[in-house]
Amino acid sequence: MQILGEMLIGSASIKGKKAPIQAVNPATGELLEPVYAGGSQAEVDQACELAAAAFDIYRETLPEARAAFLEEIADQILALGDDLIVRAMAESGLPRMRLEGERGRTMGQLRMFAGVVRSGNYLDVRIDPAMPDRAPLPRADLRLRNIALGPVAVFGASNFPLAFSVGGGDTASALAGGCPVIVKAHSAHPGTSELVGRAIQAAVAKCGMPEGTFSMLFGSGRDVGATLVAHPTIKAVGFTGSRAGGTALMTIAANRPEPIPVYAEMSSINPVFLMPNALAARGEAIAKGFVGSLAMGAGQFCTNPGLVIAVEGEGLDHFLQVAATELEAVAAQTMLTPGICDAYSKGVDRLKSHTKVTQVGEGQASTDPNRCQAGLYVTTAADFMGDEELCEEIFGASSLVIRCANLDEFKTVAESLEGQLTATLQLDEGDYAAARALVPTLERRAGRILCNGFPTGVEVCQAMVHGGPFPATSDARTTSVGSGAINRFLRPVCYQDFPAELMADAIQDSNPLALRRLVDGQNELA
Amino acid sequence: MQILGEMLIGSASIKGKKAPIQAVNPATGELLEPVYAGGSQAEVDQACELAAAAFDIYRETLPEARAAFLEEIADQILALGDDLIVRAMAESGLPRMRLEGERGRTMGQLRMFAGVVRSGNYLDVRIDPAMPDRAPLPRADLRLRNIALGPVAVFGASNFPLAFSVGGGDTASALAGGCPVIVKAHSAHPGTSELVGRAIQAAVAKCGMPEGTFSMLFGSGRDVGATLVAHPTIKAVGFTGSRAGGTALMTIAANRPEPIPVYAEMSSINPVFLMPNALAARGEAIAKGFVGSLAMGAGQFCTNPGLVIAVEGEGLDHFLQVAATELEAVAAQTMLTPGICDAYSKGVDRLKSHTKVTQVGEGQASTDPNRCQAGLYVTTAADFMGDEELCEEIFGASSLVIRCANLDEFKTVAESLEGQLTATLQLDEGDYAAARALVPTLERRAGRILCNGFPTGVEVCQAMVHGGPFPATSDARTTSVGSGAINRFLRPVCYQDFPAELMADAIQDSNPLALRRLVDGQNELA
Repeated sequence: MQILGEMLIGSASIKGKKAPIQAVNPATGELLEPVYAGGSQAEVDQACELAAAAFDIYRETLPEARAAFLEEIADQILALGDDLIVRAMAESGLPRMRLEGERGRTMGQLRMFAGVVRSGNYLDVRIDPAMPDRAPLPRADLRLRNIALGPVAVFGASNFPLAFSVGGGDTASALAGGCPVIVKAHSAHPGTSELVGRAIQAAVAKCGMPEGTFSMLFGSGRDVGATLVAHPTIKAVGFTGSRAGGTALMTIAANRPEPIPVYAEMSSINPVFLMPNALAARGEAIAKGFVGSLAMGAGQFCTNPGLVIAVEGEGLDHFLQVAATELEAVAAQTMLTPGICDAYSKGVDRLKSHTKVTQVGEGQASTDPNRCQAGLYVTTAADFMGDEELCEEIFGASSLVIRCANLDEFKTVAESLEGQLTATLQLDEGDYAAARALVPTLERRAGRILCNGFPTGVEVCQAMVHGGPFPATSDARTTSVGSGAINRFLRPVCYQDFPAELMADAIQDSNPLALRRLVDGQNELA
Repeated sequence: MQILGEMLIGSASIKGKKAPIQAVNPATGELLEPVYAGGSQAEVDQACELAAAAFDIYRETLPEARAAFLEEIADQILALGDDLIVRAMAESGLPRMRLEGERGRTMGQLRMFAGVVRSGNYLDVRIDPAMPDRAPLPRADLRLRNIALGPVAVFGASNFPLAFSVGGGDTASALAGGCPVIVKAHSAHPGTSELVGRAIQAAVAKCGMPEGTFSMLFGSGRDVGATLVAHPTIKAVGFTGSRAGGTALMTIAANRPEPIPVYAEMSSINPVFLMPNALAARGEAIAKGFVGSLAMGAGQFCTNPGLVIAVEGEGLDHFLQVAATELEAVAAQTMLTPGICDAYSKGVDRLKSHTKVTQVGEGQASTDPNRCQAGLYVTTAADFMGDEELCEEIFGASSLVIRCANLDEFKTVAESLEGQLTATLQLDEGDYAAARALVPTLERRAGRILCNGFPTGVEVCQAMVHGGPFPATSDARTTSVGSGAINRFLRPVCYQDFPAELMADAIQDSNPLALRRLVDGQNELA
């Protein structure tokens, strides 16, 4: 595949005419060719028109055809070969191993959703047979299936240029659900986006899907994205990025003549609670694990552990001592973009100059461009609570430890937090009683609760929840990782007294798709 | 139970201090005692504080206890006896038989949700067991269950003073999901509301649920409702009513520091497509069935057939002739409130004075207060499309027939419509090909599609969808009737590497709740 600096509108590829974007190699600061001229209302309209034309056809593709299409996308991405990895390395500053792993994850997601499509659980088929003799009124024959919501706008994320970008989780789950996708590519990795976009375009053609099933637009600033979200054809939005960006899309979506759902994954500081028995018994190991999680990928994960809560005492002192030593060995890593690095530096400067915050330790510094110096800071529960500045996410390898006077303060701190993607407990058996008291609060605050692990590393599986109350996401009822992500792009339709000739396969008596169904209130497996 | 003019805050009952409301008997115009002084911020705060305190306890009640509580509410409502029916008749103008039926429906809903709670499908349990030996990285043990969203604000509807009011579908599904409920009672039937509220209060006490599980507030105007929806404790809103009311709540909810979902069921004109073969073969029967559906309950149903689409010709002429004759026999029925009757009269006057609309027939008139005179009107597809006034719901027994030149115009008209709760096809075998072309459009436009029935009469069952794209509802992904309504009040939480000692019953290996689960990607029934 070639990198030509073009947008993909259905089966066409065209150059934009508006203000251009150009990727920067964050490791060196150098500009990367080519230039990507931005799209305009005209290209948004074209992509949306094609998506609208594709929708009724694409959403009714047979499960096997749609699953094979998802698998073909995975194959086409792999077939891009090392060109993809090399370009993604240049555009993101991420190391080869990480990007190869991320490619595997991206393909794994697509293949998992192929399995989801084949299983058909997501259709949630329910059949309530007619009861013609029921008194006082007969019951009609009623059948429910989920259908696709409509064309979806997906915004690529900067921190997962493969797994949460053009061919990432939002795209995979929307396509799996039967929704055409229009991607607004992230301006930090346009070349990577174009390569993956062309892979998807090739899969669309090879599998005979309608061309409007996929399009991809570029645009400097927010105009193209805003125009896309406001377009009447678009019926849902997937976004991973900043709180400011996500809430801006939420506002646009809520103010449309027809409001639509926005699935924005935005902001989380991922509290880690170090419980006393665990801290006493395993403080050193926990400190080492924690610093590993904190520093991984220069801390540029939504689930980076940005907050540690622990009770005062020897255990905590030892933890801090070991963590400080571990930090000293953390190399300065390249951050994804100059903008992210700048925001990180400013956030850390705010912490350092905060009168109630003390530095515990720092990682290595570097004079190379866009490097992240890891850092750990400490304050007290009293000083933390109510100080909005200290609750804000600092995207990068920085974390703040909260000293608590006692275990009661764990709950007080937890109750004071905004919504989170994750909450973590480091605990031993002696901590179970205290944990039991804390878990209900954590359930109200987070989408995933971990015991004795660290929040980075989000498994792509059936039981994953990568979500949580606002501002972690815009919609706590959903997950953006794992098979449950497909539910975001569906809506139920009930068919009353339909003749079999007009029924979709999913709701036919004979169950030709071998679906799990609820028939007359009873669960049935095929 | 006594009617004392009091709000219910947890286990207390208190009189408000703000501007009062007083019910009107719409059949006579007379005021009904007592006066209900409105609540204020103080009562909203009290109810919310109690709900917040109740939440962690109530949401973890065992399925059997929660199911028994829902059944107890049904029993307590029945135990109100004829007092409830008499009061509801006086406040709503609805006939005894309708209200007795609606009471049965209300109890049926509560009992259905007891069954939903016992089955536990709504928990959507997924277990991905640990894979400690997986390379390159082990997999943690991951378990998902749905938990309750939080305290829910429910707005009673005027047109179902029992089934969609204080103890109606929104309350039943929210309580079933584990959410405490605070009802803002509808000002049109405060006495009915107080009776049902006291029945729920009694069930809370009898079943030993925390008192904050249920509260009920009154308020003149929109202040109490707006304050409630803006309260940080409230995590979701259920509403059935006008488009103006629903969109006002959506705006409040979207502008909170933490936005929350609003489930507003608002506005639908429920198109009925008369397909040529059916019209030719059964025009008379269809006309009779149609007028029955149109006039039922003075047309005061969300699913009232407010729009009929048919191709020009003898079949349609005959349909209109029969419908006009049928209409002549339709008695003038009492409408729910003077406000509704006034809005209906104005809507009908707009139709009558519209230069492109002709009257087909009318029901009987009456000089008694608040009576609804049914009416049928006709226009052409060309005149209908693009005329926003003609697409607006006229709540009551009025319907507009659209003459189409040919079948192609069916699709054009359908595509021009806003979101609907229902769409109906009257069709015979000869119409199947044309119907097949139309169904995809209807799926995009409506939550329920019926063949050879009429949209009034919404079955409470597993497969029902009482929902649809905006403005039919605020959230097309949901239903407010049927067992799926519980999904509105849930969110998934993932538990990673939890010790069994800290796991909820729902996710224990031994499956003590006998749940349908997805284990390692495989469906399992208990």
